[in-house]
Amino acid sequence: MAITVVGSVGLDSVETPFGKVEDALGGAVSYFALAAAHYDPVNVVAVVGDDFPADFRQLLSARRIRMEGLQTVAGETFRWGGRYHLDMNSRDTLFTDLGVFADFAPSIPDAYRGAEVVFLANIQPELQLDVLRQAGTDAKLRALDTMNLWIDIARDALTEVMRQVDIVVIAEEEARQYTGEASLRRAVREILALGPSRLVVKQGSYGALLFDRDGGYFAAPAYPLDEVRDPTGAGDSFAGGFLGYLAQRLSMGATLTPGDYRRALAHGNIMGSFACEDFSVRRLLALTPDDVARRYDDLVSFTHFEGSWRDGE
Amino acid sequence: MAITVVGSVGLDSVETPFGKVEDALGGAVSYFALAAAHYDPVNVVAVVGDDFPADFRQLLSARRIRMEGLQTVAGETFRWGGRYHLDMNSRDTLFTDLGVFADFAPSIPDAYRGAEVVFLANIQPELQLDVLRQAGTDAKLRALDTMNLWIDIARDALTEVMRQVDIVVIAEEEARQYTGEASLRRAVREILALGPSRLVVKQGSYGALLFDRDGGYFAAPAYPLDEVRDPTGAGDSFAGGFLGYLAQRLSMGATLTPGDYRRALAHGNIMGSFACEDFSVRRLLALTPDDVARRYDDLVSFTHFEGSWRDGE
Repeated sequence: MAITVVGSVGLDSVETPFGKVEDALGGAVSYFALAAAHYDPVNVVAVVGDDFPADFRQLLSARRIRMEGLQTVAGETFRWGGRYHLDMNSRDTLFTDLGVFADFAPSIPDAYRGAEVVFLANIQPELQLDVLRQAGTDAKLRALDTMNLWIDIARDALTEVMRQVDIVVIAEEEARQYTGEASLRRAVREILALGPSRLVVKQGSYGALLFDRDGGYFAAPAYPLDEVRDPTGAGDSFAGGFLGYLAQRLSMGATLTPGDYRRALAHGNIMGSFACEDFSVRRLLALTPDDVARRYDDLVSFTHFEGSWRDGE
Repeated sequence: MAITVVGSVGLDSVETPFGKVEDALGGAVSYFALAAAHYDPVNVVAVVGDDFPADFRQLLSARRIRMEGLQTVAGETFRWGGRYHLDMNSRDTLFTDLGVFADFAPSIPDAYRGAEVVFLANIQPELQLDVLRQAGTDAKLRALDTMNLWIDIARDALTEVMRQVDIVVIAEEEARQYTGEASLRRAVREILALGPSRLVVKQGSYGALLFDRDGGYFAAPAYPLDEVRDPTGAGDSFAGGFLGYLAQRLSMGATLTPGDYRRALAHGNIMGSFACEDFSVRRLLALTPDDVARRYDDLVSFTHFEGSWRDGE
């Protein structure tokens, strides 16, 4: 009973109006795993170079995160550098050094067989397909994330992954880009028609939307923060909270209900909000179950209103 | 028992990817009044030229909209022309002919005394102050809207209006612009510190947020539309639904509760969504109470999730 996540582990150098870090732990898998491990065990599949710091490895494996699938090969770990500006919604990439990530060939260890959830973080769609071939049939829930680059240069392969997964997690602008539809709801219908039963649209600081193939719809506003210190990894932490909660429910023997998916979206927003509160994965490391429970209760109170518009309170 | 609204009535020429209209009924007051009149009687204070079509006048006065405060003076009615592009979130202003609106001097007819709600739509802050001097003490609830232009050129007067009203209704980017704060929550606190007890932040297609001086917070996602044909007037229709619902509650003798404000925000989003579905005020004219009730029930189902994250559904 666990979640297998496949994607990047890297070293991030990030500058925001609130400060900067150099060669901090980053990559989609790091954020996803540290968020999801608050809910259920996580299996990591990624690659790092022989320069990858031992304390980062230690920091991950000290949690419920299995590391057999983290390949270490001669060469440099994937490095990314970025700078955020005052509004924090746009960023400049300063450099991308793929290092050993350029030749990443994901391999699912036997020890990971039986994972009920597989998350294909943002990597080449061809690699995502390969992971599905290796592990897909075991899993009850297969989900993907992607990015504008793959929509541009690997659209057909991405379409094939979308056909094979249960849940597509995608940013609003990517849903529009992939379909060429200005209407988000039409874009959503087009993607759902490919095969996935659910589509999660990430809207950054506005929260997320959940659509299902039967027309079901749920809007989950973001958890409001006074200060966004570093939004790097918010989307991957969102996916970690979302799928982590669903994996936990499956581990408890539950059959997933529409209510489970709604609660999962709230947990996605909670983990996304924590990720933004400090640089790198720091805030995800310091989280307690009470911190999560408080934000959950807050979100309930921030969004509920009475069911009949004529009644007083 | 009514809402008095002060602002522009004009003739709009609008082009979107879905079509175009010329010299259609527009202006903040038209949208606001036609939305709010679904909830409570509305008193209009505005000015038009002697070219203002009789059928537009008829169309407003056929509803629960009093027109004694609509001055008609020699000259041309305010005209605005705009063009929207594919994403509908940005528009180009093609022309703005102020006409008789340039010398607008709002005057509240005696017949409007006793209105419980006053809405100062987007006009010069000096005129908003003048309206408050004429009508402010009667009203239980005074609210303002504004725009980037007044933040730029009439900041001090705008600050003075903010001090005197109960509710500020403002677009997210304007809240940031007015305060110079990147953090929305800090911007909100700064505005609330001026005096208003509540602040509504409009977020366009994402919905709206409600903040109160005691730290209360409510997030209301927009009503999702397949097709936005013309977003002109959505913000004013939002204000009409929001204040219209509150005015209706006051007319029923209610003391406004936090729950009333939350429901009011939902009605704001509902009216904003209807405004976008057709050009000019067409959809607001065709609305039935059942249309409103259906969207309200939809919004409840689109946003509610269970209060405890461990329970199944």
